[in-house]
Amino acid sequence: MNYKYICTNCNKEYSSKEIEENFIYLCPECGKAEKNKPLRGVLNVEYDYAEIKKNISRDEFLKIQTGKFWLYPQLWPLNFKNIKGTLEIVKVTESQLDRLALLSQSIIEYKYNNNTLLLMDETRNPTFSYKDRASSLVGLKAVQMGINEIAAASTGNAGSSLAGISARLGLKSHIFVPKNIPDAKRIQIQSFGAKIYIVDGDYDNAFDLCLEVSQAKNWYNRNTAYNPLTIEGKKSAAYDIFLSTKGYIPDNIFIPVGDGVILSGIYKGFTELLKLGWIDKLPKFIAVQASGSDALVRYLKTNNFEYKAANTIADSISAGAPRNLYMAAKAVNKSNGFAIPVTDYEILSAQKEIANKFGILSEPSSASVFAAYKKSVEENKINVNDKNLLLITGNGLKDISALEQWNDKPEIKSYELWKSYLIG
Amino acid sequence: MNYKYICTNCNKEYSSKEIEENFIYLCPECGKAEKNKPLRGVLNVEYDYAEIKKNISRDEFLKIQTGKFWLYPQLWPLNFKNIKGTLEIVKVTESQLDRLALLSQSIIEYKYNNNTLLLMDETRNPTFSYKDRASSLVGLKAVQMGINEIAAASTGNAGSSLAGISARLGLKSHIFVPKNIPDAKRIQIQSFGAKIYIVDGDYDNAFDLCLEVSQAKNWYNRNTAYNPLTIEGKKSAAYDIFLSTKGYIPDNIFIPVGDGVILSGIYKGFTELLKLGWIDKLPKFIAVQASGSDALVRYLKTNNFEYKAANTIADSISAGAPRNLYMAAKAVNKSNGFAIPVTDYEILSAQKEIANKFGILSEPSSASVFAAYKKSVEENKINVNDKNLLLITGNGLKDISALEQWNDKPEIKSYELWKSYLIG
Repeated sequence: MNYKYICTNCNKEYSSKEIEENFIYLCPECGKAEKNKPLRGVLNVEYDYAEIKKNISRDEFLKIQTGKFWLYPQLWPLNFKNIKGTLEIVKVTESQLDRLALLSQSIIEYKYNNNTLLLMDETRNPTFSYKDRASSLVGLKAVQMGINEIAAASTGNAGSSLAGISARLGLKSHIFVPKNIPDAKRIQIQSFGAKIYIVDGDYDNAFDLCLEVSQAKNWYNRNTAYNPLTIEGKKSAAYDIFLSTKGYIPDNIFIPVGDGVILSGIYKGFTELLKLGWIDKLPKFIAVQASGSDALVRYLKTNNFEYKAANTIADSISAGAPRNLYMAAKAVNKSNGFAIPVTDYEILSAQKEIANKFGILSEPSSASVFAAYKKSVEENKINVNDKNLLLITGNGLKDISALEQWNDKPEIKSYELWKSYLIG
Repeated sequence: MNYKYICTNCNKEYSSKEIEENFIYLCPECGKAEKNKPLRGVLNVEYDYAEIKKNISRDEFLKIQTGKFWLYPQLWPLNFKNIKGTLEIVKVTESQLDRLALLSQSIIEYKYNNNTLLLMDETRNPTFSYKDRASSLVGLKAVQMGINEIAAASTGNAGSSLAGISARLGLKSHIFVPKNIPDAKRIQIQSFGAKIYIVDGDYDNAFDLCLEVSQAKNWYNRNTAYNPLTIEGKKSAAYDIFLSTKGYIPDNIFIPVGDGVILSGIYKGFTELLKLGWIDKLPKFIAVQASGSDALVRYLKTNNFEYKAANTIADSISAGAPRNLYMAAKAVNKSNGFAIPVTDYEILSAQKEIANKFGILSEPSSASVFAAYKKSVEENKINVNDKNLLLITGNGLKDISALEQWNDKPEIKSYELWKSYLIG
């Protein structure tokens, strides 16, 4: 495809050849990756939107099936051949693509207090989290570039995702994680055959270590935000929302924010839809953070980043130094959205309600969006008739210790005792 | 729809009205539910296949999307109105149906030792197991009949499935489980808001207790095989296989067997396809059992059922008294298939290989099919050029203690130590 890279900080443009052939991640001009700090000079992929618009109309685009981003090849930084008629990605087989398919119908409608809520269920992705959107694009790119080894830092989901997607594509993966990783995520990473490196520290440490080691080892790096294709991969949800709602996009989208890359990716996708003239305004992005990991909330108030070690039960959004802070802040501001913190207690209550009422088992970070929705309603931060979409990014089975916190240890009784207890 | 019930034992026919209005489960003539024994007089739903054939051709049928059984209303014991043009199920909303949708593309192709293997991935169903197929049909039937409370006995998956599907449909559920239920399955049941009853005994005890209690309490019972709609619901995989392969169905289907209801359901579905004239022969059904829970393997040899308490790491197929033994045996015999036992060790090795090579995290019961496939190849039990489908019925995250058995406890090192270890 025809695309270039643009720095989100200094706006300098680079050809795709220059960036990709030299394995450049951040802006060569102003890029900086420092310990415990947001990244500077994150790159963004930019296409020729005028050209794309000429070749496909909104109506034609809306006929595309959701969950398979390669069905609109013109919007991805991959090498396709024979776009018309076939969908062949160079060096990638059709069955490899099939393995990456998401749910075709992931947006489910529920009634809640007489309002309609849209829940976007990413718990049923190939490795059971939103992160598969980024890993899939990065993995396909690696296959195309002939790279065999990929590395990533992760609180758990990005790592289990990269490990699983790598197994599906035949790649070798190296995953750096903090020591508080939930058991299920750790065992998922190991089971998929990845090498795991547990750091006696937090996610911010794992991020920095992974950068250092993969530079020294020449591994392809999938660290979130650092590799621009992570943001790019995560934009696919914007298209899936556009397609699923047949263009009637929600007014507000509630997104859990750790590093801020999911928010940035979805913002990027909707920005493209705006450039293509297929929507007339952005949805409001509501950035949801845990009170114990609220760097974006604070940054939006003070316009100043201050590092504070993160501490929350919602491990997936536990990040003291959100690596994509600046783009995430822009997404909130440009869309007239807002950032909202929720407590661990509110998160666990929301997790219970989502499971009980909607039959969806989510992990704490995902449950945060429902807590934030309820708080936004209470505090009149959203309009009564707004159409709201909550992004459920991760599966509750990935961290059952959180579920144990609000479920009693059930009793064990003998056959006879249950019988007399229940029917006398 | 126009359908009746037929006893699989004495062949007596009953009208749907007679069975359903009186909440009859087993054959009124010969039905028998005894402790620690297979059920007698299991009922089967029978449609007017000649009539169905007249109204839809094979080619038209093959255009239906997979994963949504209500798209072919003529083959389900539910009450639909206005079949032509719309798909409305009486008393059920469209958004309720959306919540039950399975993957549209669950059959994934892999190469293994130069052969093509089809893996049918049921780990991404709404509650992450095959059981959602049965729970969905039973749940919809309950909604139609105006029933609010449902009960089921379960090793874990059927229960977490019924609990989750009930939450999605607004029903109340009661789940009876043995004390060895893996933590993740138990917490899933509790989190979905079901009442859980843990029996100090095995699955066979839980089954019998659930029957007694639900009769006394007048709860609608979803015990597998006992409620004929469990077999009926599980037949949908046969149609999904038929649709996904565009009618080029596999030669052999490897199915994990506990109570034998998945096998019976899939057999029933393919039998219908045969009656409709849309396939010309049944695939061979290969019944896979754990060596420590091999009642069907033994029954097929001796034609005699003998109760033996089950003992295997594959908890989902741990059943000393397979409740649908007789129908399962028929499925194997009629299709010229066979039953094959695999050891717990073989199961765990297969689980590792499925995760490493295919990127699918399966639970032990599901991994058994891959172990059985490899054994069948080694022992020349299947033809070299056969097309094989392996049914992966449950998610590995539902029992991480099994995964821990073949993964080492990973090391935790400091930032500096990892750095010097990895890059000197």
